[in-house]
Amino acid sequence: MGWPTALYFSSQGHDVTVVDNYLRRTLSKKLNLSSLFPVQSLEARAELWMSETGKKIKVVIGDLSNADIMRSLFDGGATYTWPNDAKFSGPPETIIHFAEQPSAPFSMIDYESANKTIQNNLLVTNNLMYAVRDYSRESHIIKIGTMGEYGTPNIDIEEGWIEIEHKNRKDTFLFPRQGSSIYHTTKIMDTDLLWLGVRMWGLRITDLMQGPVYGINTEEMSQNKELRSHFNYDYVFGTVINRFISQAICEHPLTVYGSGNQVRGYLNIKDTIQCLSLAEKEPAKSGELRVFNQIVETFSVNQLAKLVQEAGRELGFTPEIKHMQNPRKESELHYYNPTYTGLKSLGLKPNYLTIESLIDIYQLVGEYKENIEKDVMVMRLDW
Amino acid sequence: MGWPTALYFSSQGHDVTVVDNYLRRTLSKKLNLSSLFPVQSLEARAELWMSETGKKIKVVIGDLSNADIMRSLFDGGATYTWPNDAKFSGPPETIIHFAEQPSAPFSMIDYESANKTIQNNLLVTNNLMYAVRDYSRESHIIKIGTMGEYGTPNIDIEEGWIEIEHKNRKDTFLFPRQGSSIYHTTKIMDTDLLWLGVRMWGLRITDLMQGPVYGINTEEMSQNKELRSHFNYDYVFGTVINRFISQAICEHPLTVYGSGNQVRGYLNIKDTIQCLSLAEKEPAKSGELRVFNQIVETFSVNQLAKLVQEAGRELGFTPEIKHMQNPRKESELHYYNPTYTGLKSLGLKPNYLTIESLIDIYQLVGEYKENIEKDVMVMRLDW
Repeated sequence: MGWPTALYFSSQGHDVTVVDNYLRRTLSKKLNLSSLFPVQSLEARAELWMSETGKKIKVVIGDLSNADIMRSLFDGGATYTWPNDAKFSGPPETIIHFAEQPSAPFSMIDYESANKTIQNNLLVTNNLMYAVRDYSRESHIIKIGTMGEYGTPNIDIEEGWIEIEHKNRKDTFLFPRQGSSIYHTTKIMDTDLLWLGVRMWGLRITDLMQGPVYGINTEEMSQNKELRSHFNYDYVFGTVINRFISQAICEHPLTVYGSGNQVRGYLNIKDTIQCLSLAEKEPAKSGELRVFNQIVETFSVNQLAKLVQEAGRELGFTPEIKHMQNPRKESELHYYNPTYTGLKSLGLKPNYLTIESLIDIYQLVGEYKENIEKDVMVMRLDW
Repeated sequence: MGWPTALYFSSQGHDVTVVDNYLRRTLSKKLNLSSLFPVQSLEARAELWMSETGKKIKVVIGDLSNADIMRSLFDGGATYTWPNDAKFSGPPETIIHFAEQPSAPFSMIDYESANKTIQNNLLVTNNLMYAVRDYSRESHIIKIGTMGEYGTPNIDIEEGWIEIEHKNRKDTFLFPRQGSSIYHTTKIMDTDLLWLGVRMWGLRITDLMQGPVYGINTEEMSQNKELRSHFNYDYVFGTVINRFISQAICEHPLTVYGSGNQVRGYLNIKDTIQCLSLAEKEPAKSGELRVFNQIVETFSVNQLAKLVQEAGRELGFTPEIKHMQNPRKESELHYYNPTYTGLKSLGLKPNYLTIESLIDIYQLVGEYKENIEKDVMVMRLDW
């Protein structure tokens, strides 16, 4: 999501810096996984963007779990000398924090991948919080959380907060969170850290509790194939809709984990960009941890499989649906009623999941059919 | 607390191994802080214990945030070779996890001490969880939490769990937690991690939400001065009662942070040992995260200052009480009604704070009056 976000804000005239250490690429390579099509380096894509639009996106390759590297982006370079002698003019107005190990399955491989996820995600978040605390308390941090932090409670899921009445007294708390992987747990911890920063130092935080994202085309990326970002369809980094469509195209059954009655909220990548734009335009106040549930509709896994099947039929694909043992430890039949009105009241116009939007993804994936490795579309891990 | 706990369990005939990397000593030294009296190495104290009682306590010096070192304690040494070729016969029945950076003020010095606290506390807890998951799922983990995880909510604090009724539906959740330092926040995160382990792998966890501990003498330590553990009275590692008594003895005013109306739950170190013993004898069930609030009574800081003053008068000390600006960001006038019945129903017989128990501490501290460094008794940090 980082790259399409950078393109969008650059297209809107913002001065954008992207910072990445290619963590997902590195981890994918180690696991012999790859994106559906080759994706060039950030530098190459930024050059292409420059040549197409005249707009500059600054690219920094560095590991933000190293505090010196993080702080160098805020302090004018006093703490760290960049190889190319790059300088940063001053603290950013807005920081969009995507710099996390993003895969629940990866985090559950073994103790090393668990530790890697904890160290990366917590240290990046803490380094960011302290850099803002020390250099730039007015900067607005937009943090990508996940709906998975809430789990599947037996009560309605509110947007981040809940008033609890207990023995005739009341108080308002962060909505209870319990993830079902190390990855999800680190996102809960991120929120705990940032909530500390809000209370102690008056930071401004927006926490976007996002559901699984599907799709690939944003307005800016669709201008040139070479501007596209990664499309993952594998058992570690691929999300369910991308994976189902890749399976359908290879005439592989759509593999549903367990009963398929697990319900989650979803959104199109175009809506991710809209939500970030809305949050940036109307920042959280100083001393506010603002939480939005970033989904536009909910589906069960079975419903998604049927929609992918239906879209496939229009193109001559007739995938079966196959239930396999659920590798995750999760409730397969549960109550799920999340609230998601906050972003709509800021102006979000949802792009709902339609047969047409699925056909678009089918067509993209179809172009690269020969690249699909069938054996990585099926889960090999076990919680 | 680790050493007196080891002595107690050893005295009861258990086969005890202590693992430490002297983190607190190292951090104290860096900050030019020291214990009230010199404390010998663990090895030397274990030798002394052996010579006095014939009971062996195995001492391992190693950093448990290193996964290999943690795992070597469970797997018979396959992952790590100890310098002295030590071997561990098999996974422990019970693990008492104290291996954390324990100071809230330390965690708030700067970004480096925050990162150190996060890395140490989270990696040790995660390494322990995975070692138990991988080698010894029946082992009972007793984890020291802190009452500070709850903060000061405007509702009664239950023992770990709360049933929430919301829009005519109900579910039970971990009681809401919000710490007011990086240290406290890492303890919340520990609980989040272990709760994941309980749900995913059926681990057995007891989380003891402890209040500030006072006192120094346990039955075993009082047998020989050289068996004693650290007594910290400084602004980083000292707890309030130890610090007040050290101030009184030096004819320094008792320094109360802010209004002094902050209420917390307290307990004597003898009761810490009792609670650990009770939890060990009746372990949590497989798949249970059992939480106890480990305090025996509550006091405001002003009440404690007055009790220390009163006890001092019996010995001819007449300390003033002086309010200073609160370096912590915390509520100074708040509701506080924690439940703490669980450990009593397991059999805890509280040692309440009395003038006599304070006089005991006065006498101990008085013996080392010449060691007290006055300038470290007053807070120098600011949240």
